[in-house]
Amino acid sequence: MTEMQKMGQRAKKASQVLATAGKTKKVALFAIADALVNNKAKIIAQNNIDLKNGEENGLTQSLLDRLRLTDERIEGMAQGVRKVAEFDDPIGSVISGRVAENGMEIKKVRVPMGVIGIIFEARPNVTSDAAALCLMAGSAVILRGGKEAINSNTAIADVMREAIASVGLPEDCVQLVKDTTRQSSVELMGLSDYLDVLIPRGGAGLIKAVVENSRVPVIETGVGNCHAYIDKDADIDMAVNIVFNGKTQRPSVCNALETVLVHKDIAEKALPVLKAALDEKNVELHGCESVKAILGDCVIPAEEYDWANEYLDYKLALKVVDSLDDAIEHIRKYSTGHSEVIITNNYEAQRQFTAQVDSAAVYVNASTRFTDGGEFGMGAEIGISTQKLHARGPMGLAELTSMKFIITGDGQIR
Amino acid sequence: MTEMQKMGQRAKKASQVLATAGKTKKVALFAIADALVNNKAKIIAQNNIDLKNGEENGLTQSLLDRLRLTDERIEGMAQGVRKVAEFDDPIGSVISGRVAENGMEIKKVRVPMGVIGIIFEARPNVTSDAAALCLMAGSAVILRGGKEAINSNTAIADVMREAIASVGLPEDCVQLVKDTTRQSSVELMGLSDYLDVLIPRGGAGLIKAVVENSRVPVIETGVGNCHAYIDKDADIDMAVNIVFNGKTQRPSVCNALETVLVHKDIAEKALPVLKAALDEKNVELHGCESVKAILGDCVIPAEEYDWANEYLDYKLALKVVDSLDDAIEHIRKYSTGHSEVIITNNYEAQRQFTAQVDSAAVYVNASTRFTDGGEFGMGAEIGISTQKLHARGPMGLAELTSMKFIITGDGQIR
Repeated sequence: MTEMQKMGQRAKKASQVLATAGKTKKVALFAIADALVNNKAKIIAQNNIDLKNGEENGLTQSLLDRLRLTDERIEGMAQGVRKVAEFDDPIGSVISGRVAENGMEIKKVRVPMGVIGIIFEARPNVTSDAAALCLMAGSAVILRGGKEAINSNTAIADVMREAIASVGLPEDCVQLVKDTTRQSSVELMGLSDYLDVLIPRGGAGLIKAVVENSRVPVIETGVGNCHAYIDKDADIDMAVNIVFNGKTQRPSVCNALETVLVHKDIAEKALPVLKAALDEKNVELHGCESVKAILGDCVIPAEEYDWANEYLDYKLALKVVDSLDDAIEHIRKYSTGHSEVIITNNYEAQRQFTAQVDSAAVYVNASTRFTDGGEFGMGAEIGISTQKLHARGPMGLAELTSMKFIITGDGQIR
Repeated sequence: MTEMQKMGQRAKKASQVLATAGKTKKVALFAIADALVNNKAKIIAQNNIDLKNGEENGLTQSLLDRLRLTDERIEGMAQGVRKVAEFDDPIGSVISGRVAENGMEIKKVRVPMGVIGIIFEARPNVTSDAAALCLMAGSAVILRGGKEAINSNTAIADVMREAIASVGLPEDCVQLVKDTTRQSSVELMGLSDYLDVLIPRGGAGLIKAVVENSRVPVIETGVGNCHAYIDKDADIDMAVNIVFNGKTQRPSVCNALETVLVHKDIAEKALPVLKAALDEKNVELHGCESVKAILGDCVIPAEEYDWANEYLDYKLALKVVDSLDDAIEHIRKYSTGHSEVIITNNYEAQRQFTAQVDSAAVYVNASTRFTDGGEFGMGAEIGISTQKLHARGPMGLAELTSMKFIITGDGQIR
């Protein structure tokens, strides 16, 4: 039995206790939050080792910043854990129920997933965020973070495990994979005897690798090549507001806008206003020939790459389309199925767009930046699912659970 | 582009039409049902070729029987398709909805999965069953049946495609893979650019192969190593009825009982009554030492194989356990997570059993044979999911769909 299999076995054992732990889960989460705060110095000391290694290994300033833990950031992590503890426990809630003709009562109830694996990249705060959500959802978790943050993650996981044990739950409810070589990811992806689901959190490359190689069921999260379509019947000011917000409020996130499609009948009026707004933030424009004809030489000619990829930066792809059908066709071809918006005052156009665009979140006249667990009323979220199985869109606590049927009778046979 | 990729592309194209086809789906299903009946002779002629090949290739009588189509069986298939057409259309129904504080309306609605792949074994009736369910759920389907039934399946698929085209929907809503070599299964399992989900229907070997090798998300169906636990506080007559029904009413199906665990305090009374009942059907008993001590030499000593496998036959594994905890431990070790039952009149025992046994269907005092889409009020079913993601237990039309969020606003930004 490999080390990873042993971890899987311990996680499964712990998950059986956690499945019926009820409100002790909340007690554990509050203990974790306090422990994180009380152990700030220890965590920061370990984080400093990661930062020093990172500098020596030439990590960019932006990566170093994501890696850095401060008193304030650790307080924030603790606050995040407390917030999760305040949610309603999803476990045991009855999803649906009926009495069969023969008198059997058939209930469908929410139960824990069991053991959840999470593979993530640099940010050490994911360690406490993800663990708290899994724990509240009644599942044991095996975390496998990036090597850049291994010392920070280990310190955080140790603090959490101690806190969990202090309230009488198995410390193996939370485990961190210490081996950060590629091999450990591969082993985790093959751990189908113990893991019920594997969730990758990170960039497109990580997600693709997990989806393609995992034998454990995967929930695909996050990549968002999001589109706005400005219809011929759009209110131009509203359109500009929504695009400006979607592109510039926080360009590095998955629900940020990446491409804007503009109906030809409104392009000459809308594009200059849009450009003026985006100029405030020095957004680099990549456009088709028609866009270039209207806006001039400031527009960089768009290539296949511009339509197909997330910039996650102050850059925007712009295209003039002949019709709503063409806009939908473009979205079908290039969208990653995350979030898309139509800006229009035309009733038929919004009906067609919402019916035919097949993405996790389809908007009419509102910013794609709202695709978020908090905004959708789920409290926290573990990620945004862009696949169609199990969960689609923001995944909160409920989406981290499974269900089972409980059937009670008095001797019914078939 | 391979032939399989072309099929995938055609299916995706067809699925986009089907997604908004509304009631035309029902018209198509009635047309399919009529066409199956009207083309009985043609289908039976092709079926005769399969039967002849099967005889030459030494198929068992039982397999030949499953393969055989008669006028009556084709009428039955048509009737099954009509039944699906009479269900409510799941597409577009609102799963949940709310108004956010900023006034945006957020709805979660049911949408089609897109393209569903189904890999199945010998029985040709699966071709029409599965296609009808997928079509009604708004998804295009790619069917890959066994080589034994290829001529029958081709005839059935051709009849269905013609009927679909006759009502104005794309015939590629239903496609059959003509190549029945192993290679075509492998290609289908790698078709992640076009397939949204792959559902294997068949024996344990097929399901395992698909789960382990598919890059497309899989819904695991069917294998049922089902347990009954006769508690010390059981009504013995009820227990015997439930076990007799679970074991003998239809031993070849996945919700049939395979192992019975008996509490030691009731074993001496219960086992002889149980044996007397099972003797009526000549059920072969495989038991532990304690069972053998009570029932005598008719009991074949049980080995690891007996606990770990489905017999799907008139055979039953029997074990005396010391406690409810031991019963739950045994079930955790050997169950495939399908259906388990406790027979008891003890309130605490049923609470513990239903909370701690982690299977798709957990029964108290009723036969496991009820784990079935029809019995659970879902109408038809495509299979019984034994995994925890997306769907668990019987999968009806709703479980063949996905969802998306539709958000309507009047210019909200973040």
